[in-house]
Amino acid sequence: MNEEPVVGFIVGSKSDLKFVAKGLRLLEDFGIGHELRVISAHRTPDVAAEYALGAEAAGLKVIIAAAGAAAHLAGAIAARTTLPVIGVPIPSSDLKGLDSLLSTVQMPSGVPVAAMAIGETGAANAAILAAEILALSDPSLAEKLRSYREQLTEKARRTGAVVSPAHEE
Amino acid sequence: MNEEPVVGFIVGSKSDLKFVAKGLRLLEDFGIGHELRVISAHRTPDVAAEYALGAEAAGLKVIIAAAGAAAHLAGAIAARTTLPVIGVPIPSSDLKGLDSLLSTVQMPSGVPVAAMAIGETGAANAAILAAEILALSDPSLAEKLRSYREQLTEKARRTGAVVSPAHEE
Amino acid sequence: MNEEPVVGFIVGSKSDLKFVAKGLRLLEDFGIGHELRVISAHRTPDVAAEYALGAEAAGLKVIIAAAGAAAHLAGAIAARTTLPVIGVPIPSSDLKGLDSLLSTVQMPSGVPVAAMAIGETGAANAAILAAEILALSDPSLAEKLRSYREQLTEKARRTGAVVSPAHEE
Amino acid sequence: MNEEPVVGFIVGSKSDLKFVAKGLRLLEDFGIGHELRVISAHRTPDVAAEYALGAEAAGLKVIIAAAGAAAHLAGAIAARTTLPVIGVPIPSSDLKGLDSLLSTVQMPSGVPVAAMAIGETGAANAAILAAEILALSDPSLAEKLRSYREQLTEKARRTGAVVSPAHEE
Amino acid sequence: MNEEPVVGFIVGSKSDLKFVAKGLRLLEDFGIGHELRVISAHRTPDVAAEYALGAEAAGLKVIIAAAGAAAHLAGAIAARTTLPVIGVPIPSSDLKGLDSLLSTVQMPSGVPVAAMAIGETGAANAAILAAEILALSDPSLAEKLRSYREQLTEKARRTGAVVSPAHEE
Amino acid sequence: MNEEPVVGFIVGSKSDLKFVAKGLRLLEDFGIGHELRVISAHRTPDVAAEYALGAEAAGLKVIIAAAGAAAHLAGAIAARTTLPVIGVPIPSSDLKGLDSLLSTVQMPSGVPVAAMAIGETGAANAAILAAEILALSDPSLAEKLRSYREQLTEKARRTGAVVSPAHEE
Amino acid sequence: MNEEPVVGFIVGSKSDLKFVAKGLRLLEDFGIGHELRVISAHRTPDVAAEYALGAEAAGLKVIIAAAGAAAHLAGAIAARTTLPVIGVPIPSSDLKGLDSLLSTVQMPSGVPVAAMAIGETGAANAAILAAEILALSDPSLAEKLRSYREQLTEKARRTGAVVSPAHEE
Amino acid sequence: MNEEPVVGFIVGSKSDLKFVAKGLRLLEDFGIGHELRVISAHRTPDVAAEYALGAEAAGLKVIIAAAGAAAHLAGAIAARTTLPVIGVPIPSSDLKGLDSLLSTVQMPSGVPVAAMAIGETGAANAAILAAEILALSDPSLAEKLRSYREQLTEKARRTGAVVSPAHEE
Repeated sequence: MNEEPVVGFIVGSKSDLKFVAKGLRLLEDFGIGHELRVISAHRTPDVAAEYALGAEAAGLKVIIAAAGAAAHLAGAIAARTTLPVIGVPIPSSDLKGLDSLLSTVQMPSGVPVAAMAIGETGAANAAILAAEILALSDPSLAEKLRSYREQLTEKARRTGAVVSPAHEE
Repeated sequence: MNEEPVVGFIVGSKSDLKFVAKGLRLLEDFGIGHELRVISAHRTPDVAAEYALGAEAAGLKVIIAAAGAAAHLAGAIAARTTLPVIGVPIPSSDLKGLDSLLSTVQMPSGVPVAAMAIGETGAANAAILAAEILALSDPSLAEKLRSYREQLTEKARRTGAVVSPAHEE
Repeated sequence: MNEEPVVGFIVGSKSDLKFVAKGLRLLEDFGIGHELRVISAHRTPDVAAEYALGAEAAGLKVIIAAAGAAAHLAGAIAARTTLPVIGVPIPSSDLKGLDSLLSTVQMPSGVPVAAMAIGETGAANAAILAAEILALSDPSLAEKLRSYREQLTEKARRTGAVVSPAHEE
Repeated sequence: MNEEPVVGFIVGSKSDLKFVAKGLRLLEDFGIGHELRVISAHRTPDVAAEYALGAEAAGLKVIIAAAGAAAHLAGAIAARTTLPVIGVPIPSSDLKGLDSLLSTVQMPSGVPVAAMAIGETGAANAAILAAEILALSDPSLAEKLRSYREQLTEKARRTGAVVSPAHEE
Repeated sequence: MNEEPVVGFIVGSKSDLKFVAKGLRLLEDFGIGHELRVISAHRTPDVAAEYALGAEAAGLKVIIAAAGAAAHLAGAIAARTTLPVIGVPIPSSDLKGLDSLLSTVQMPSGVPVAAMAIGETGAANAAILAAEILALSDPSLAEKLRSYREQLTEKARRTGAVVSPAHEE
Repeated sequence: MNEEPVVGFIVGSKSDLKFVAKGLRLLEDFGIGHELRVISAHRTPDVAAEYALGAEAAGLKVIIAAAGAAAHLAGAIAARTTLPVIGVPIPSSDLKGLDSLLSTVQMPSGVPVAAMAIGETGAANAAILAAEILALSDPSLAEKLRSYREQLTEKARRTGAVVSPAHEE
Repeated sequence: MNEEPVVGFIVGSKSDLKFVAKGLRLLEDFGIGHELRVISAHRTPDVAAEYALGAEAAGLKVIIAAAGAAAHLAGAIAARTTLPVIGVPIPSSDLKGLDSLLSTVQMPSGVPVAAMAIGETGAANAAILAAEILALSDPSLAEKLRSYREQLTEKARRTGAVVSPAHEE
Repeated sequence: MNEEPVVGFIVGSKSDLKFVAKGLRLLEDFGIGHELRVISAHRTPDVAAEYALGAEAAGLKVIIAAAGAAAHLAGAIAARTTLPVIGVPIPSSDLKGLDSLLSTVQMPSGVPVAAMAIGETGAANAAILAAEILALSDPSLAEKLRSYREQLTEKARRTGAVVSPAHEE
């Protein structure tokens, strides 16, 4: 992809990567320039801080941060930028992401994180939300989004129609 | 306020209004045109549907939806627009908003809702996130946001310094 | 099945179908005309709205809606009909249906959804509840239900008796 | 009220009565004959059993059972009748009704209970669901229900319109 | 086993049997006469009622009831006897026994159930608690219990000593 | 009270005393000799150990232990006696006794604790369970228990009958 | 207090101060030099980073961090120092500190935070744990700690003895 | 290893050993003398008491206690020593360690336990926290810790850099 990255997609550890593949593919499908980084709020806090502080100058518009357990990554980024930050709670091995969700969403007044659903679904939706945000000033992306939604609806409509012919026909 | 509304702030019932006052004040402070509506996904589904379908044409850029319990309002809006939708879980009387949070955040793939913290804090942060999104194409709003964040930081810094003189001085 | 459908059984996505097979078989065993549809409150909200609005005219008496995570399907239907709506929380991958249950059951005053147990058990019970409702004006169905319950009891009684001969003999 | 009772509304203890007043008023508003009883699945199991076994012969069509904590009342009734049984989880003092909800909704295959939301809201919705069920064979009640829903919608619509004049006008 | 049953061990369904094998073996090891029955509070409520009402006359001293989900079995028995009733929450497929535990333990004032841990551990401990209760008037059983506990302790002590020779030696 | 204590009722701290008054009164009503002690598993572990080790020789038959939060008291007693130990989870200030309940009930294989409901209800039921256990070898206590249960039933029956004259009359 | 601070006690916001008074008093009672600061991981991330990075050079040995909701403060400090960091979850208004606890305790491998109980109790225990850590190389503090524990035990022992004279005398 | 043990690492049962291997390896890597013991607070309470009481005299500085379900081990040790005690909640089979965590962390005022994350991660972090505590009076260990952290950071930094070359270069 040759686009300059406008979406920074970061995950807290390599093991989180398997949850974000669909989200990355959606960004590509939308033609949104993006970069993928593994940055840990706890193991590489300086990298996280620099990333957040430099994001705007680097041309980023939206940051997606996916992390599990005591999931501080999105919050740590949001603390150092006024760009929109989207948080994806990665399911943890024992508490299944309830910890990740609460750590991501319960941010204090003044520093919002836009929390998505737990896991792969959330990562995909993060990409779509990023597209929705960027589409506000990009009519062609807005068009792509509408078309994506129509396909989604059309596919779901066909799936539904097939199952059992019924009273609407 | 004379600004054309670009943020639609809707709540599921009148009793939710007390949780969103600070969020509305922030929108005003940022000079962001907005409107406030009480729309119920369950009692007035048609109004919700029309609101969502007409939002873009009406000039809205971001929709904030606050609701409690089986909190479907944000999701019902998100299902009918590709504008960014921010969901605020209102605390319910018995389960204290855990139901509202899960109903808001656990959206299916394809239809994102940006979930905020439960209650008043979440409503305030919804306003700030809306500002962050709008600021991507509004440099003066971006400036206001940075200034807001600096004041927040400055105030917190002063609060911290007062408590007990310590090693950093 | 040649019966006109009186029960509309809808699921939020194709992946939910595996949880509802037993429920559908029960409807067939009771000789209750029914139809199966995949309708998503979020991906095909218009279909859901039309379905709910047209249900009564189409001859439906009861609607069963099964969905997972931020499970809005039953509520979205209930918002647009005064037919009895039964909600089945489908287990979600991480939170195991706690989210689905709360999203289904915690409906606001005025718009009830009859929530069942999470998963396959709930889908089976939804079919039985539908039969109980329809049996109020259908004596032969009432008879079938009583007979079904007696068989259930008899089978459970035999199971219990076999395990270990004891003081009741 | 002179109507023969067709809805049996039972609560597990006197202290639960304060949660069901609105539900009872709704039944009265709909002109649905009903009776109110305090029956405990644990303190008066025989009364519960007799009530369930005699319900159909006594002319009841629907039973609403409200109870808290290890809320077995609805299940104990459902175990002995094939009439539709609606369960209302009453909030418990410490766990706030999460125990009541799970004890009510997680019924085994074969014996459904239609669970409502926790507390007063659930009791009100139980009355409406009972009305929806009875309306299937009572056109004038169906008409009342539609009218009730329209008023609900109309009232909610007016509430919403007042708050802040906006783009729809 | 030739002993007259003094412990009634009942489970809510055949699928619960796999969780109680160790509990039954312990009763046998202690030489406590017992019987095993499958009785469902919801599918065979009459059997449950008769069992509870006849338990004392049949010579039972303690009843152990194991059930899952909306686990009413122990409570339904306790409602009809003043013999000690021990409840074992069987893990449910989705909520993992949290529902079973709360349904078992949160009994109302006047009708106690002695709740054990969730699953196989709880079933084993139910057998031991039954033995502890019976041992109050059976010195030889008391002796067996002390000996069992000593072996448990001795075995655990040896396990611990083996791992890593340390400062206590 | 002149009876030799056969029930040892211990609470983890003075602040727990307000939850156990009804339980103590029930023991008195049943004429069961008992003693009340404040013993902390964490602040006075030696006292707890001595109490448990000396309980049988001191004539105790049953020990009731009420504690909150990381509620180890019942388990610490049960670890050092083979007398039946009943645990009462005291509601904690923030988690409302969910922590107390899980700490009390989830005992490992070999060392049972009979867990009661959270709070005052559980303390009352602990007294009744103790009575049920002691009644196995005390016919006059058994008679008192049956009479207590009958009064409970009778009172509940009268309460229920008063509310609303209905079909059973 | 003239002691050089060796314990840094920081709280996330001014509203958390009411929970930590007892903890501070304990540090004073132990004669442990300490400082109190209000530092927010999200509103003043630079202050938090500098504080953590400068802590060792400033002579601090242990850092106590108390925060609520998405409680990242302890983790943010722990990410930038190898001094022991103790985390105190402050109760949040809706979820009562469950969010704070999980955000504090579920730290990733490599960056530990020592989590205490929720609220005031946890803040007091944080002070004691800090004393225990410092006492490892400070015999007079170790002596104070032993004396404190003995007083705690003695006071609890006296409390327990008073309630009801019993078999141990 | 020839070092005198200064860290006592104890687990509640043999089945917990698989969760602590990484923690033990870390202690070895840091060159910290340690011993491993299986001690059950419930099956071998005397061993636990003796271990705690003798720990200081035996030269131990820190005790790590890992246990599951009603996890009392850490608390039982902390009740009898003023050495720092670190608790590791082992995941339980049904509740996945939520019970273990609450039983470990919610200690009463006066007797702290330093709770770690659930499972293997927590056991590893317990070892690191022990090292952090010991390093306060052991400069060479402090150096090892800093080096360990640097390697952790370096490795995480390299992982992150590889994924997708981006704007920071």
